[in-house]
Amino acid sequence: MSQPAPAAIGTRLEEVDTPALILDLVAFERNQRTLFDLVKNRVRVRPHAKTHKCPEVAKRQVAMGAVGACCQKVSEAEAMVDGGITDVLVSNEIVGARKLERLAALSRRAKIGVCVDNPENLKALGHLGVNLDIYIEIEVGMRRCGIAPGEPAVDLARQILSFKNLRFAGLQAYQGRAQHIRSMEERHRAIELAAQHVQHTKRLLAEAGIPCPRVTGAGSGTFMLEVEAGVWDEIQPGSYAFMDADYARNEWAAPLPRFEHALFVLSTVMSRPSAGLAIVDAGLKASSVDSGMPTLWQRNELKYTHASDEHGWIEGTPSPALGEKLLLVPGHCDPTINLYDWYVVVKDGFVVDLWPITARGAVL
Amino acid sequence: MSQPAPAAIGTRLEEVDTPALILDLVAFERNQRTLFDLVKNRVRVRPHAKTHKCPEVAKRQVAMGAVGACCQKVSEAEAMVDGGITDVLVSNEIVGARKLERLAALSRRAKIGVCVDNPENLKALGHLGVNLDIYIEIEVGMRRCGIAPGEPAVDLARQILSFKNLRFAGLQAYQGRAQHIRSMEERHRAIELAAQHVQHTKRLLAEAGIPCPRVTGAGSGTFMLEVEAGVWDEIQPGSYAFMDADYARNEWAAPLPRFEHALFVLSTVMSRPSAGLAIVDAGLKASSVDSGMPTLWQRNELKYTHASDEHGWIEGTPSPALGEKLLLVPGHCDPTINLYDWYVVVKDGFVVDLWPITARGAVL
Repeated sequence: MSQPAPAAIGTRLEEVDTPALILDLVAFERNQRTLFDLVKNRVRVRPHAKTHKCPEVAKRQVAMGAVGACCQKVSEAEAMVDGGITDVLVSNEIVGARKLERLAALSRRAKIGVCVDNPENLKALGHLGVNLDIYIEIEVGMRRCGIAPGEPAVDLARQILSFKNLRFAGLQAYQGRAQHIRSMEERHRAIELAAQHVQHTKRLLAEAGIPCPRVTGAGSGTFMLEVEAGVWDEIQPGSYAFMDADYARNEWAAPLPRFEHALFVLSTVMSRPSAGLAIVDAGLKASSVDSGMPTLWQRNELKYTHASDEHGWIEGTPSPALGEKLLLVPGHCDPTINLYDWYVVVKDGFVVDLWPITARGAVL
Repeated sequence: MSQPAPAAIGTRLEEVDTPALILDLVAFERNQRTLFDLVKNRVRVRPHAKTHKCPEVAKRQVAMGAVGACCQKVSEAEAMVDGGITDVLVSNEIVGARKLERLAALSRRAKIGVCVDNPENLKALGHLGVNLDIYIEIEVGMRRCGIAPGEPAVDLARQILSFKNLRFAGLQAYQGRAQHIRSMEERHRAIELAAQHVQHTKRLLAEAGIPCPRVTGAGSGTFMLEVEAGVWDEIQPGSYAFMDADYARNEWAAPLPRFEHALFVLSTVMSRPSAGLAIVDAGLKASSVDSGMPTLWQRNELKYTHASDEHGWIEGTPSPALGEKLLLVPGHCDPTINLYDWYVVVKDGFVVDLWPITARGAVL
């Protein structure tokens, strides 16, 4: 039931059918180098596959030096292992008998880590009887999942030690809310606070005689702040490879690099109903609007002002012609990629590859 | 690359893996009867497949008396024809050589209609050399696609007549903005205005000696207003079969029936980080948030307050237990269905069928 690709290899960009998810290979590769050159001698990199959903991307990240991939879902992790990734951290809690069985089966095929924030869930993991790396997720300001840092986390670590098949692998400490704080200064403050929670918990673990092998976390909006804070051993950025319109609205300054837009939705003007208004064939089923409308690439005179399911409103003059193709920068890359079955990989104006998005729709 | 179904036939609802798209078969069938009983002797019904994306649903609509299906995309229409639907109206403009070739190929396999609002696009359709029903889309208040009603539409109709292989099939007149106007009175006014544009255009067509075989349009939020206005021959509702949280916020009163919620996202509580807060495993990749957050089904004490990609925040007390399963009513059914490969069809608490969503991701 996957959709056919909107172009063949060798097709000119302007002839790709629309809407299509376009990956600018040169910008993507520059983003890869920017990240790995900056951090590879300081922390491990475990990019998040929740963003790209594609083993081909994960393998290229591993080739650059990544230690493996992160996933949020067991079904995503299955797609990564099926695609050749041998080390996957499910940076999330996995609750439910069926999911746990699948996680156990996967742990026989690859090195699998998973997070816990609850003793009951830990017991269910222990009773699977398979070897798993267990990370304790601590709450460091996101107010989502995670056990309170400090004593509660140490107590949970003690419980992990009571299961022979489980290894306490360290802490998951991700400040998701910080990623899109616009001001660098405020983002910095959020990560400093998160770092204090991590340090406090590490100190108590050390006092309890429990080694904490690793602290993992961080995203594209903050990772250098975690690196400089000095208490994270591994980072989990995902969006850096693509960059979306929402991330572009952040303030970017040292120590964070500014990544390039490498991901686009190609659309076609399908109607010219009035002066200054063009309608494109890419609406909210082609570019997710949860973090705002897409922006127009290199067409500053135009603005994407409104989306319905299959249509987008492009306002501005001179208005593009009927049939003209426009590149959109998605508002939010993760849920946009999740709408497509293929990356149409473009270089020098031609389709050079088609990468299947095998974890598209992997919600289980 | 389609995802495996989250349950087998015979599974109890509580044991379906999550997130899963659940269709309550009894409520769905009641919604079907409600619609068809109301209108079948007054207008033709051509339900919109952009909502359901599933030939199995379309076939059940045809069995109730629908004349066929509507689609917004050529690839959607292909999925419907592949699934056994023989009469499809693409209620949208189709622009671009590759799409037109596919439309032409499809017209050899089924009765196909398509909309135009532009002479240049009409020429491209004419030059395909295949038989097509052509509807002129007129702008009736939505300010999206569509040619101006009145003389411009009549002029375009004259141009259709100059192509031997094209048949002028009538007018597409859809007031999309009216569907979610909350007040019945204001919705009524919007449809009255749309009806005036239709009547004016029909009168000018008659004066020009051009028969207008059919006027088609209308959605779930207004269709009885179009029926009572007396100038539409065919209606195109889609959401009526499912009902979502956004439609539920409309004022519903005669002549419109109130449909039941038949579509749900089943989710699992995966974390209980603090008093009064539970985190479920269904975020914005499991239930589209473009029209607001999902609501909780039959759990009035709880509120889904925030979504990130893979997580949902459930606030309220008493807070549900870790592992508890909750039914969510999606904010917007169309883009939510488009995230899934399967309807998990449930009756009397058990999975009774699995319907593949073959047009999921059909954006071309």
